[in-house]
Amino acid sequence: MKVNKSWRHKIHEIIYGTHTPAGKFFDIILLVVIVYSVIIVMLESIPTFDEKHHKFLNYSEWTVTILFSIEYILRIVSINRPKKYIFSFFGIVDLLSTIPKYLSLFLIGSQYLTAFRILRLLRVFRILKLVRFVGESNNLVRALHASRTKIFVFVFFIIIISVLLGTVMYIVEGPSHGFTSIPHSVYWTIVTLTTVGYGDISPETPLGQFLATVIMIIGYGVIAVPTGIVSAEYASGISKKTTENPGKACPDCGTEIMRVDAHYCRQCGHRLSED
Amino acid sequence: MKVNKSWRHKIHEIIYGTHTPAGKFFDIILLVVIVYSVIIVMLESIPTFDEKHHKFLNYSEWTVTILFSIEYILRIVSINRPKKYIFSFFGIVDLLSTIPKYLSLFLIGSQYLTAFRILRLLRVFRILKLVRFVGESNNLVRALHASRTKIFVFVFFIIIISVLLGTVMYIVEGPSHGFTSIPHSVYWTIVTLTTVGYGDISPETPLGQFLATVIMIIGYGVIAVPTGIVSAEYASGISKKTTENPGKACPDCGTEIMRVDAHYCRQCGHRLSED
Amino acid sequence: MKVNKSWRHKIHEIIYGTHTPAGKFFDIILLVVIVYSVIIVMLESIPTFDEKHHKFLNYSEWTVTILFSIEYILRIVSINRPKKYIFSFFGIVDLLSTIPKYLSLFLIGSQYLTAFRILRLLRVFRILKLVRFVGESNNLVRALHASRTKIFVFVFFIIIISVLLGTVMYIVEGPSHGFTSIPHSVYWTIVTLTTVGYGDISPETPLGQFLATVIMIIGYGVIAVPTGIVSAEYASGISKKTTENPGKACPDCGTEIMRVDAHYCRQCGHRLSED
Amino acid sequence: MKVNKSWRHKIHEIIYGTHTPAGKFFDIILLVVIVYSVIIVMLESIPTFDEKHHKFLNYSEWTVTILFSIEYILRIVSINRPKKYIFSFFGIVDLLSTIPKYLSLFLIGSQYLTAFRILRLLRVFRILKLVRFVGESNNLVRALHASRTKIFVFVFFIIIISVLLGTVMYIVEGPSHGFTSIPHSVYWTIVTLTTVGYGDISPETPLGQFLATVIMIIGYGVIAVPTGIVSAEYASGISKKTTENPGKACPDCGTEIMRVDAHYCRQCGHRLSED
Repeated sequence: MKVNKSWRHKIHEIIYGTHTPAGKFFDIILLVVIVYSVIIVMLESIPTFDEKHHKFLNYSEWTVTILFSIEYILRIVSINRPKKYIFSFFGIVDLLSTIPKYLSLFLIGSQYLTAFRILRLLRVFRILKLVRFVGESNNLVRALHASRTKIFVFVFFIIIISVLLGTVMYIVEGPSHGFTSIPHSVYWTIVTLTTVGYGDISPETPLGQFLATVIMIIGYGVIAVPTGIVSAEYASGISKKTTENPGKACPDCGTEIMRVDAHYCRQCGHRLSED
Repeated sequence: MKVNKSWRHKIHEIIYGTHTPAGKFFDIILLVVIVYSVIIVMLESIPTFDEKHHKFLNYSEWTVTILFSIEYILRIVSINRPKKYIFSFFGIVDLLSTIPKYLSLFLIGSQYLTAFRILRLLRVFRILKLVRFVGESNNLVRALHASRTKIFVFVFFIIIISVLLGTVMYIVEGPSHGFTSIPHSVYWTIVTLTTVGYGDISPETPLGQFLATVIMIIGYGVIAVPTGIVSAEYASGISKKTTENPGKACPDCGTEIMRVDAHYCRQCGHRLSED
Repeated sequence: MKVNKSWRHKIHEIIYGTHTPAGKFFDIILLVVIVYSVIIVMLESIPTFDEKHHKFLNYSEWTVTILFSIEYILRIVSINRPKKYIFSFFGIVDLLSTIPKYLSLFLIGSQYLTAFRILRLLRVFRILKLVRFVGESNNLVRALHASRTKIFVFVFFIIIISVLLGTVMYIVEGPSHGFTSIPHSVYWTIVTLTTVGYGDISPETPLGQFLATVIMIIGYGVIAVPTGIVSAEYASGISKKTTENPGKACPDCGTEIMRVDAHYCRQCGHRLSED
Repeated sequence: MKVNKSWRHKIHEIIYGTHTPAGKFFDIILLVVIVYSVIIVMLESIPTFDEKHHKFLNYSEWTVTILFSIEYILRIVSINRPKKYIFSFFGIVDLLSTIPKYLSLFLIGSQYLTAFRILRLLRVFRILKLVRFVGESNNLVRALHASRTKIFVFVFFIIIISVLLGTVMYIVEGPSHGFTSIPHSVYWTIVTLTTVGYGDISPETPLGQFLATVIMIIGYGVIAVPTGIVSAEYASGISKKTTENPGKACPDCGTEIMRVDAHYCRQCGHRLSED
């Protein structure tokens, strides 16, 4: 039993941890496989490419699927509380991004399975979470989190303005100039307000063009607001540095250990071994 | 009489206030009804949807109209000085967003009544004003208010530049390339300067394209100005916190009470009861 | 002679100054006439409007031209050194924006005279210079002036990047996809880099679209640079307040007096009377 | 030998240095020739212009090529360690931007040689590096360098979001509405997210337009992030001023001397003469 635990412990260290050479190597391999599998999914969606290299794409996809399946099983085996992992966000992502190829054996031609395969991209975040850019992205996430109410208020204002101005544009321009309904007109207003400006619909009456001009200048000026918000939060966030993640994870539930001086897992209370 | 006053007082608390459970519940119901009614107006404007579900939309609209009518009457009844409410901004919005369906009985087919129904969206602000996001949106409004002269100067410069460059583009490109008149040319210049870029008109002569390039780079750089302004105002505004609205309103004139320690309404001088 | 001087002095005060009621009134009238004349020029350029109301536009233009002519003569007469005014920036603008209608008597059909008439818009700046928004626009101008080297470096980088990437796009996409020449390709690159995006030309090869994506992300990120520059300058500029212009101008050369405590004109050394 | 060294020394001073009148004059001439040669390349790519003035363009190109060849040889001759120069970044740029015309004698009609000729534009940086705008562009470069990890994280997030949302749009809109493959759909997402918005593809289903709206608002808000990052870095960078480059270069290896008080080259240890 001691041997078994040690064997499981080692796999846990390799798969979940990043502080050993083997763990680092595993993460790099996983990153390569993920990026490769995402490229396969993208290439498969190009009709001309898929026709030419269908066999190669199919074999690649099976290889990736089997590799992910092995990894998924090892993740469940090496952890003390598999249920916690299976129903965690990344556990579900891992499962959803692995099964589509198996399902395609039964459900033929379903294009929507592609959507789940692209979820593999989300797995990249787990790897990155444990390695280098933690500090920077934490700063970004913290700045965004701290300004979430402000951002909500801002988006809310944008939507209210868009609905009101969109309705006015619908009345001014009317269905004959491409503003076929209020939702479509609101869509156009957001396209203009955010300075995207596709040009699939554009105002044709002088009054409509004048109003469009007003919307543009509002959008051009209002962009300053989120910038001001995030700048302020970001600037204040720089000073608050955190002790960086030592690259370990709890062997019991898989939660990453954030502090160097942690003796117990903050999620499940598991005693962390001092190795 | 005492009983009557107490009855009116209770309705006042429910409709105007947010500090009682009933008041909060009323606000949530009102929010749902407003959002529902706005969605009805939007769906009604889609010809294909309106044809299929005309009856359902009509019934929904009548239901909403009657609910708003009852609310409008209760608002007038439960307040001490109804005139002040009727001629206040929100009083007019309430009336205008309620009557279009009644008017449609007499004036058939008037599309413009839709505009008034969408005004219901403005009612959302009254609810929000009394609840959660007050602090944040106050900060935003204060930052915008404090920088209003700067924003005016900025918009003024944008307009002057647009008129001057638009005229130059009109002379350079001419009506044969889509720059049919100076106002149309100014419209194009604003479309370019704000980086919207519909592409309904685009310069075709080398000189015109060169000038367009200059306009783009100006617009790309000038966007920094409002950002700088609002950032500075916003940053300075963070420190000045205000005592938040306790969620009450004056029973006499409907003005919201902004300070916890208020004993008299700042608008009409009405003595606020200590309950 | 004393009487004459006093008469000229009064006209000077009215036309150049803003600290007397008559001076303020004159400025408001002038502002209205300028805006009116600019609207006339714009309306005249709309073929359908010009056909219908040609007579009215012609009379309006003659009225405005005669009013500006009288003002121009009074400006020369009421100043001690007319030459300085005539060859100053605003003196030339005044002349150029007045004469086109006279010239149109001899040179028929010249569309280019319109350009000079729109220069009247620049005259608005003289009026504003002497009145309300001085402080704010001074801040803006100072911020832009202080960051002029930075802005130059920034624009220079943008141009270099655009020429290099534009050439690459020319080679990748080629004339068959609308990238007909290097200058045209550079034009497209600037359209993309500044996030304007007309869509008159858009890449069609996968490599071209990939490069376009890179250009967009560069442009999207690089917009941060001028914002950072101007924000920093603007923030530092807020503290340095200037004593505001008392609304007078030197009777000798027309230079505006910037400081309340000025006894001599800083341009020509003329002794300012204490009235 | 002493004479020879002195002769080489003088050429070195003229070509590499900027602190003597001859050195400054050489740089100005070189700048003019570079700009001229770039304009020649651009004009040559315009078919109509090339047809008319082919001879003139050909002679100009030969003149420029010969001038650059002489300069290249002098640069090698006048430096103590030619190898270091030849394999340096600018050494390669110098060679690549000189040889295309010689190669065109053997390889006829190769359009791709143009790409190398436009590399001449990079040579402008060497000149600017030694002169006026050093301080400002150093600030910019330092700000960008300091925030490189943040920018990487930001671009990484943008790409992940674009791939995920692009795949969703591919499923929602499908090939029939122009979203022919996932890579093409991701391209469209980046076009929208960066607010470029060509309009060559635009969503047509209601759900697609709703998602497009979400992407636009994300893009509109997310632009605040790089602005916040660069602003913060730039603001902190202003205080750290560096002693400016005295305009000399090491006669041994061509490295520019950055500090006024330098006695030895920081790259090769060459003793700098005190002249």
